This record gives sequence, C-alpha cells and structure tokens, in this order.
Amino acid sequence: MKSSVKVAIVGASGYSGEELVRLLLRHPHVELAAVTSRQHAGQTLAQIFPKHGNDPRAKQLRFTDPNPELLAKCAQVVFLALPHGVAAEFAVPLLEKGCQVIDLSADFRLKSAEVYKEFYGHDHASPDLLSKSVYGLPEIYREQIKSATFIASPGCYPTSILLPTLPLLREKIVKSTGIIADSLSGVSGAGRKAEIDYLFVECNESARPYGVPKHRHLSEIEQELSLAAGEAVTIQFTPHLIPVNRGICSTLYLAPEKHFENPAEMASLAERIAKCYQSAYGNEPFVRLLEGKALPDTKNVVGTNVVEIAWRLDPRTGRLIVMSALDNVVKGASGQAVQSLNISCGFPETAGLT
Amino acid sequence: MKSSVKVAIVGASGYSGEELVRLLLRHPHVELAAVTSRQHAGQTLAQIFPKHGNDPRAKQLRFTDPNPELLAKCAQVVFLALPHGVAAEFAVPLLEKGCQVIDLSADFRLKSAEVYKEFYGHDHASPDLLSKSVYGLPEIYREQIKSATFIASPGCYPTSILLPTLPLLREKIVKSTGIIADSLSGVSGAGRKAEIDYLFVECNESARPYGVPKHRHLSEIEQELSLAAGEAVTIQFTPHLIPVNRGICSTLYLAPEKHFENPAEMASLAERIAKCYQSAYGNEPFVRLLEGKALPDTKNVVGTNVVEIAWRLDPRTGRLIVMSALDNVVKGASGQAVQSLNISCGFPETAGLT
Amino acid sequence: MKSSVKVAIVGASGYSGEELVRLLLRHPHVELAAVTSRQHAGQTLAQIFPKHGNDPRAKQLRFTDPNPELLAKCAQVVFLALPHGVAAEFAVPLLEKGCQVIDLSADFRLKSAEVYKEFYGHDHASPDLLSKSVYGLPEIYREQIKSATFIASPGCYPTSILLPTLPLLREKIVKSTGIIADSLSGVSGAGRKAEIDYLFVECNESARPYGVPKHRHLSEIEQELSLAAGEAVTIQFTPHLIPVNRGICSTLYLAPEKHFENPAEMASLAERIAKCYQSAYGNEPFVRLLEGKALPDTKNVVGTNVVEIAWRLDPRTGRLIVMSALDNVVKGASGQAVQSLNISCGFPETAGLT
Amino acid sequence: MKSSVKVAIVGASGYSGEELVRLLLRHPHVELAAVTSRQHAGQTLAQIFPKHGNDPRAKQLRFTDPNPELLAKCAQVVFLALPHGVAAEFAVPLLEKGCQVIDLSADFRLKSAEVYKEFYGHDHASPDLLSKSVYGLPEIYREQIKSATFIASPGCYPTSILLPTLPLLREKIVKSTGIIADSLSGVSGAGRKAEIDYLFVECNESARPYGVPKHRHLSEIEQELSLAAGEAVTIQFTPHLIPVNRGICSTLYLAPEKHFENPAEMASLAERIAKCYQSAYGNEPFVRLLEGKALPDTKNVVGTNVVEIAWRLDPRTGRLIVMSALDNVVKGASGQAVQSLNISCGFPETAGLT
Repeated sequence: MKSSVKVAIVGASGYSGEELVRLLLRHPHVELAAVTSRQHAGQTLAQIFPKHGNDPRAKQLRFTDPNPELLAKCAQVVFLALPHGVAAEFAVPLLEKGCQVIDLSADFRLKSAEVYKEFYGHDHASPDLLSKSVYGLPEIYREQIKSATFIASPGCYPTSILLPTLPLLREKIVKSTGIIADSLSGVSGAGRKAEIDYLFVECNESARPYGVPKHRHLSEIEQELSLAAGEAVTIQFTPHLIPVNRGICSTLYLAPEKHFENPAEMASLAERIAKCYQSAYGNEPFVRLLEGKALPDTKNVVGTNVVEIAWRLDPRTGRLIVMSALDNVVKGASGQAVQSLNISCGFPETAGLT
Repeated sequence: MKSSVKVAIVGASGYSGEELVRLLLRHPHVELAAVTSRQHAGQTLAQIFPKHGNDPRAKQLRFTDPNPELLAKCAQVVFLALPHGVAAEFAVPLLEKGCQVIDLSADFRLKSAEVYKEFYGHDHASPDLLSKSVYGLPEIYREQIKSATFIASPGCYPTSILLPTLPLLREKIVKSTGIIADSLSGVSGAGRKAEIDYLFVECNESARPYGVPKHRHLSEIEQELSLAAGEAVTIQFTPHLIPVNRGICSTLYLAPEKHFENPAEMASLAERIAKCYQSAYGNEPFVRLLEGKALPDTKNVVGTNVVEIAWRLDPRTGRLIVMSALDNVVKGASGQAVQSLNISCGFPETAGLT
Repeated sequence: MKSSVKVAIVGASGYSGEELVRLLLRHPHVELAAVTSRQHAGQTLAQIFPKHGNDPRAKQLRFTDPNPELLAKCAQVVFLALPHGVAAEFAVPLLEKGCQVIDLSADFRLKSAEVYKEFYGHDHASPDLLSKSVYGLPEIYREQIKSATFIASPGCYPTSILLPTLPLLREKIVKSTGIIADSLSGVSGAGRKAEIDYLFVECNESARPYGVPKHRHLSEIEQELSLAAGEAVTIQFTPHLIPVNRGICSTLYLAPEKHFENPAEMASLAERIAKCYQSAYGNEPFVRLLEGKALPDTKNVVGTNVVEIAWRLDPRTGRLIVMSALDNVVKGASGQAVQSLNISCGFPETAGLT
Repeated sequence: MKSSVKVAIVGASGYSGEELVRLLLRHPHVELAAVTSRQHAGQTLAQIFPKHGNDPRAKQLRFTDPNPELLAKCAQVVFLALPHGVAAEFAVPLLEKGCQVIDLSADFRLKSAEVYKEFYGHDHASPDLLSKSVYGLPEIYREQIKSATFIASPGCYPTSILLPTLPLLREKIVKSTGIIADSLSGVSGAGRKAEIDYLFVECNESARPYGVPKHRHLSEIEQELSLAAGEAVTIQFTPHLIPVNRGICSTLYLAPEKHFENPAEMASLAERIAKCYQSAYGNEPFVRLLEGKALPDTKNVVGTNVVEIAWRLDPRTGRLIVMSALDNVVKGASGQAVQSLNISCGFPETAGLT
C-alpha cells in the first residue's frame, strides 16, 4: 500500500467532477495535484466551487487546460469526468505515459465495439483498448480492479440495476429472460448542461419517462447481466426524470427460476434469496440489505456511497420484486470511482468515503 | 338537461374536497349549496381556503357538520370526499332520501364484498349497495353513468392504469397475463393528514416505493381489467412516492397477444394499436393520445382533467410499453367526479372542466 | 364594447408568452389570430405546448416568424412578450400601422430616457415613444388604460411592491424615505433561458439574493413611487431566488408619517391604514386584502391574477410591515396584460381571468 | 485535552437530534454512549435512522427512555435536543450530577427571566440557572465556552443574524437603531412535528412570511445585539418559510454610523468594514467571507458548519446590506453545539465537523 497518491481530475467542473473534488479533497491518502476545465482555466477551485471556499487546497489549486503530457507529470492517477466520446482522447495518451486511468464516462465500459456502435451511433475511437479496461464495479470485479491500470467506472442506472440482479442471476435464482427495470433519476443525472429541458421550471412539478425503449445504458447493463447469466440477456429498461437533485430508485421485476406454488415453497425461495444476498453483500461496506418492512428511499443514501436493496416475493403473481436506491453522483459515479481507486492502490476501501 | 343543480360536498376540507370546491364554484350549471367539515363547521369557505377569498359564494357559504337529513333537503347531488370506510355511513341515508351520490372513496368501487374484505381488512358495511353503484370511469361506463344515481368514482392509480389498458385488453391486442404497472405519485395522493411520513422534509429529495407488493388499489384495477378481458386478471403494481404536489405517471409493461418477429409485423401491430386507441379515445375530450416523439409528463396535465397516453413497441423485447400521466386530484379524483356529474345531469361533459 | 377582438402574440414561446397563450385561448372575447416565434415557426401551438394539445385552436394555429406588416393585417391588438431591448423594434411599426400594442417588456415603462440609460446601460431605441405609453397597472391607471393604444405592462417585482405601497404614499400615511422592499421570486422570473444558473440542480435546495443593491426594476418602482409621493423616492430593494416555479412574495418595511406612541395612537393609525386600503382596493377584483391572522402565501395566488396584501404595525419598532404575494407570470406579467386588454376594449375586466 | 469523551443525546429523534447523531457517530473524540427517545425506546439507531444502517455503533446503540440518573452514569456530556420548555427539566438534575450540559433549546439562552416570560408566555422554570449558562456562539464567546459546564446553544435565525452584525456594532460602524433582518428558512426549522402546515403539499410551491412582527427569537437576538452595542437594541425581524429542507438566508439592512457622501468616503467605509470582518472572522474556520461578486447561497453551506457572509454598500440609499447563509440544522443547531463541545473539551475546534 502506498501512503498517498497524486491524482488529477480531467473535466472537474461537471457534477461528477465536482463530486470527485469533494471526495478527493478530504481523502486521507490522496493529494489532489491537478484539476482541468477549459472553461475555468486559471481560476481556483475555491472560486468556482464556493462550497470549498474554506479549504486551503481549494484556495490554492487552479484549473488548467487539459494536457495529457502535463497531467502525466504531476499525477499517478487520472480521473476522467468527461462527456461520452471525449474520454477516449485522453485515456490513450495518459495510459501510454504510465498513468492509471479511471474513466467515469461510458467510453470504455463495453467490451464490444459493435455494441458500442449500435448504442452510441458511431465507431469507437480506440477499439483496441476495450479489452484492456476493467469494469469498475467493486462488489463484482474487486480482484480485477486490484491490479487494473485502466478502470471504466459504471454508469448510475447500471449500478442501481446490476448490484441487485447479478447475484440472483449467477445463482440461477431468477430467469435471465423477461427482466424489467423501471428507474427514477434525479436531474443531476443529466449533467451540468445549459439545456431548456433541465431548467428548474421544466423539471420541478414534473415526472416523465424518457429514452423509451432503448436507452444507451442498456448496452452495459445487458453486457454484465449476460456475463453473470452465462447467456445473452435482453432486458426492458425505462428511465424516468423526477424533481430531486440526486438519487436513483430502481424497481426490478424478476421471475424466479423455480415457480413457487404454496407458502412453504415461497418461504424456501425467500430463504434462498436472503442467503444469496447475504453471501454476496453481507460484508460489503457500501451495500445495505434492508430488513423487516424497510424499503429503499433515496433520501437515505444521498451524499453517501451506499446502495440500499430490498426485495419482496409476490404470491399473487409469482414474481420477485427487487428495489434499490443510490446516489447517482456518488455510488453511481464519483464515489464508486474513488472506491476503485482505494482498491487498486491498496488503501482501505472506505477511505474518503465515510 | 337541467339548467342547474344544487350540490353538496361532504368532507370538503381534504385535497379532493378542496378541488371539488374549486371546480364547482366555477361550474356554470352547479349551485354549491352545502359543504361539510366537522373541523371547520361555522367558518366560511373563504376563511378556510384563502385562494377562494375573492369568490362571493365562498365568502358566504359556511361549513356545517355533516347531517344527511339536512343535506338531502338542500342538495340534489352529494359528493362524498371522505376517507375510505366512512363514506358508507353517508351513502345509505342520502340515497334513501333520493339524493344522487357521487362517492370519491373506495367504499363502493368493488362489486365483491369478499374482495373488499381481502384488501381492506374488514367486512363491508353495506354489501347490498355494492351492486347498485356504477364505476364512474366515463370513457368506459358513460352509458351507465347517464342514468346512475350512485356513482363510485375511481381511484387515481386505477384511472392512470385502466384507461391505457382497457381498450387493448378488450380487443385482445395484449395478453391478460403478466401485466406490470409501475406508478409514481405526488404527495397529495396521501391526503391532507398530519403524519410524519408526509412532512415536507420527509418527502422532498426522496423517491421511494411503498405498499409492495399488495396495494389496496389492486382490487379495483383487477376487477375492471378482468371485466374487459373476460377472464380473471392479476397484475403487478408498484406505487412510488415522489416530491411533486400533484400528478401520477404510470408505466405499463404489456405483452402483445401475437408476437411480432420482423419490422413488417411490428408495423402492422403498431397500426392496430393506434387504431384501437383512436377508436376508443379519438373523440374523448379528456384523453390526449400523444404523437411523434412526445411522452407523457405530469406537468402537462396538472390542474386539468386530461390523461396523456403514449406507447412504444420494443423490437428488442417484443413488449408494448404504455405510459400515462394525469393529475391525481383532478382526473384521478374530483375532476372525474364532476365529469360524471355532467354526464348524469345531461350537462356538456366538459362543463366546469376546461 | 367590441364583441371580440383579434390578437397576436409576438414571442409566444417564453414563459410570459406561454401564459398569454393559455389565457387568450380561453378568453371569451378574444380570437387568437397569430403567434410568433422564430425558433418554432411552422409548428402548431399544440406541438410546442403539449398541455394545449386538446384545444382545437391550438392544433390549428402555427407559429410564424414575427413580421409587423403581416401581424398588423391579422390582429387589432398585439402583445409583445419579448426580451428587454427587442420590443422597441416591433412596437414602432405596429403602432404606425394602427395596432394597439401591449408590451410586457421593460422597454417602455420608464418615462425618462436618461433613467433608462442609467439602469439598462444603453441609449433607448425610441425615446419619443416613452411619453406615449401608459403604465399598465390597472388599479392605478385604469382611466388612462381605457383609451390607451400603447400599454407598457409592469414588471413582476414592481407590481408586488407598488400595489401595497402606492395608496399609503398618496395619502401620506407613510414616509417616502427609507422604504425597503425585500422580495422572493420563483425561477420562472428568469425566463425560459438555457443558462446554468437556472438549472434544476442549481436552484433546487437553494435560496440566494442577487442583483444587490441595484436591480433594474428599481427604475420603474421608483418612478411610480415618486409620482405617488409627489417627490423623488429612492428605495432599497433586494430580490432573492427561491425554488418555486412561480410566485413573488414581497415584504415591505415602511415608516408611518406620524409616529405612534401608545396603543390608542396605534389603533387610530391602524384604522387609517385599513380605510386607505379598503378605499383603494375594496372593490378591486384582483386585490385580496387579508383579514385576521392571515398572511400572504404564494400558493394561494399561483395561477390566478390576484395579489394578496396583509400588513402589521409593530409597536416595538414603530414600523409598518406590508406583505404581498402574487404569481409573477400572471398578475406580474400576462394576466395583468390581459386585464389591461379587457379595460381598453371595454370587456368585463375579469374576462378570461377567473 | 481529553482523548475522548462519552456523550449522550436527549431527544435524539427530531431533526437536531438526528443531526447530532450523524455528527457524533463520526466524531474522532466522541463515544456516543446513550440516545433517548420515549417514542423509540428499545429500538436501535440503525432501525430508526436507516441512513446510519451500516454504522456498527448505530446497529448496537438502542434508544432509551430519558432518565437523568442513568444518563449521568454513562455520559460526561449531555446534549439536550428537546422542544422549548422541556429542556429545563433535564438540565437541572444533569448539572447537579456533574454532567456538562449543551442545550439546543431556547430555555437558557436568555439572561432575563422577565424577557423570557414576555416572549415565551410563561414563567421560566429555573430562573436561577439563567445566569449560569454560556451563550454558545463560539466566534463570540469562545473564551467563556472553554470553561463552561452549561452551554445554551444559539438558535438558527439568531446565528444567521448575529454573526454578520455583532462585529459591526461592537466597532460602532453601524447604528444600533433601525436594524432590519429579513430571513428565509427551510422547513426543517419547524422540527419533525406532524402538523398540517408542514406537510409537503402545504410547503412545496409556497413562500410565506410568518410570526410577524414578534417572533420569539427576537429576544435572544436583541439580548446579544444590545450587549455588543452597549445599549438596548430593538430590531425588526421577519422570518419566511420557503420550500427547501435546510438553510437560512438572512438579509440585513443596516445604517452606517457615519453617512458617506461621495465615492471616496464610501471606499473608506468599505475598507473599514472589510477590516472589521477580516479581524473578526479572518481566522474563523466556520465563517466564509465572500469576495468579489459572490453572494451567499444556502446550497453552498447545506450539510456544513459554515456561515457565508457578503455585504454591499448602496450609494443610492447610504445603507449597508449584509447577507448570510447557513444550514439551520448544522451551524444553526447541532454543528454549532458540537463546535462548543470541541472547544470546551479542548479538541480541535473542527473535529467531526469537516
């Protein structure tokens, strides 16, 4: 374990970048060495993010134009908090110069350049690199993250859907067909972009589905579900925009592999599900398996790296309903990326995250 | 057609009651003759609802204690905007005295006293009356409403789920099995009750499922779906609470009766669905069938009696996704009740509602 | 009185324009003849404003590019709902061609081109016209509005501050010096502009002052206060942005002209104030003088053309506190403009506004 | 300096209590030894506060009925997070048994039993103790807090008003007369009470003044202003409720002691004000003096113990406008109480607060 590591953030002025700044400024093993933003180059972190105005490092550190050469000189680890499609430009030169790269965009999450093209509408800029990145979902890929130099950190919706589903698929408790994920997201998920659709007045007092029926995140969700199931999985996914700053609440509709016909069979299945989750996540610091009557609520996870999970068997329909809640900017983005950093650097996994 | 009718509202201080007051004060064919509220008896409408403070009738009309005998003397039509379980007490004597009763509670929506007991946990107070009420969903039961003296106005979730689904089931375009309804509701749906769970701080910046897996509204939803399908229908329904005052957004997952295998079959199915909706709702004043890329958004229906409906076929999963949005207090409660009043009194159906 | 009038809206896609559309579509004496928007030219009202999707006129009427010549041919009255500085371009040719013009921008509210330059930073484009416009505050300038062909409709903050203050100044009940107005505004006040500052995430869970100490609206507020006082008035005004869609809540700190020293003097002053307001607004359809313990609340006026006013004398400080609430898009903009239309056309003043 | 201290929280289920739990669970020098709540006695912290569900201490620690004797046995410091009027019951026995008491209620903030009666409407239960408590505003009373055994932690509004005003009054930069404080508060300020007025639907999309003109907090504000001014000070204070969970934004209207007549005098006064604040708060860890064009925004302080302060001189009116923002539950309540704990125990003042 290193005692500390120098890190840089490329694209530090969006919501994910800002959250990385917050987390890394107080991280006990991190020295924030550089932050980039074309728009804010020359200004200090404290000037752009008033909430960090009292932090000595934030008063001193200035945004720079992003330059892979200079970044590689001052940082061992570089976080890319860039729009989809832009991250590839930086990942290649930074990796070549020996930096560890943790990419928060979707650019390197997929293993197939073909699937990338299908969902993102254009050829991938660096298809060779697709096989080199590790999908940074620590609860699933912890071993691979330990030695990874290139981590593609998962999306917010995928994290909220994959963590509740993967253990059940791997243990073949639920069928790999017919899966439905219905998700609600806070507006920060749209990024800090000046678009009419995300103005306060357009979002407040509004609830609406969007991206129906083929949202881009389906590609990475199905990739990971397929790996867990050992066969190709296609799911239904409907995202909705709701008027909260942060938070994703996902409700998953799953079919148990073995139908239950009576209370005894239901109890036995329930026990198997409970064990499955307990075995998968019982010791995970950032998964909270709810008990009793508790159901997930985004307000209980906002600002934290925790994902809440609860489930119910429905004797009327024979289905398993699994519900999750997480903070899209923390466990769904920047917190999870820091969790990967901790694992790969040998820091305590919760460092800077509690 | 009568030129005007005298109406009373029992339980006028909750959110549905307050909305009835708003709608009926400006209704061209209604004279608001009485409003009751034990809590506010003796005070004027204008005192309790400051927003009606400039309305001459609201300055004059005082809340009274609810008394069926007196109500029957001054009103031809009585709206019951009472908690579940309480409406029965008033419906019986008012009907006996010859009033038309429009009940906004769930007390008389079910046809089966057994199902009532299963979902509401106690015996029904007036099981004989269950067969006498008409389910007040005008787009489906307009003919029955015309001559009804006892109308059980539908719930908010049921309206948002039934209107998009019933035509498809009746025409056997979708299967009656495997239906899933995932709904988001504003906080007014919980009523004006002093409970910690519905405080601003507990709801703001929160998104959460509740009532999983067996919400009471399932009983009336399944009753109506079964009637349309001609066989018993059991569905999955998950309500969520989101931080808006008003609005329900429902996303429905349906399986087409006939699987489509290629773009031509999909186009043909799409045409059939479009025709089905057009035929069912093309002339309905309060249903908006969205076209092109438009998807429902609660902000476009709040304050109106309109339900928005849009749908998508998903070639990847073979499913039909139908989405709806309505105002839970208007089309989901008081507006729909006024629509029934208009129909049964022979007023223009949109009177007081546009 | 004309039985009906043809009107056009220039700049119908912003929040004020959209509200004008809503009000004029249902106005009993108005035929909405044209709506312009460079961005949406060629599309129907129903396509751009889904909430009007069921309105027959909205399905038919298409946005056009703004062209004064064509507008003058099809409309007798033209509303300008344009950004400050742009309205002048249209007002001049439209007036020349004989249209009545009701301008919602700040371009013609000031009588002095000098003051305009001081507050808006550039020379006025048509200084000659400044003397020809009538300040469209009906409660104050009703007589002038009756015969006006050019109406400069007041701003939202000014309306919320002027209506509570003018009668007291005119009757010399309060001093014209030392006036402080502290105002809270919903985000729609910033217009439908794609700017980071007004994104949902930047406004939600935020309360902040802005434009301190010299907001542009001060110019028209002070102009009107000075006219009422008969001497130059300079006030303190601090606007704040709060996370609501609509609504302005203003709290005004005023010094009674005659200091009160004991309860009897206070009672006598209170009586004078009550009479002053009663005499000024007792018969006004859109002013609600609150009684008893009631205080203004934006939620009681949103969606209406009403301004609520309440006041308190403070025996501890000797001050008079006056509080008001209105909907910035209705009484603060489009509703007030329609009220002026009604007055000038001889329609009932409340037509289309209740 | 002790290495660690055992603390108890009486009344841990309200918003202040819950925030104390959050702060103390992660405080490096605190062992949370007991939490009381009549309502939740027997349940663990993790059960009642799901957001702490992963914290080992929260899973273990159970709420108990409040019993001074038992509390005194297990804790050296006891925080009272109780409604006004109830705290006195606990303070007396706990102090007698040798505990340090940090009271978050208003019960012991006033030095005069007479003023208490005037503002709270009943006799004080333990008037003798009033002289023994220290007003726990660390930036002002740090020396007294160091050795205090009984700390009355300030209210949220008072903190937001006193910190910006006291240095100016002490240095006689502003007059002690004519001060106006106009404040906006989030709904958590009303406490976790099941009252209709604080339901989501009643607060969302609402902005309203309340408690005009004599809010209880005036008593402690004026007590402290008078001490700083060296003479009796009476101010005007208007609180408003706005739809945010947390945050107070105060705008203060002050009259400079020496009127400025020209830009040079204004610049000289500005310099004096800047120096005054710099000298008072330049080294304070929890005061952020904003620079340049920045103005306070509650979203930049929520969740932190920081108060933001900015000011403007207005050459038009001669007034000084000072604006502040803080989190009412942190710097306005629990965070400030922990800051006092740190000072009195000799811990680093920022321990557990950054």
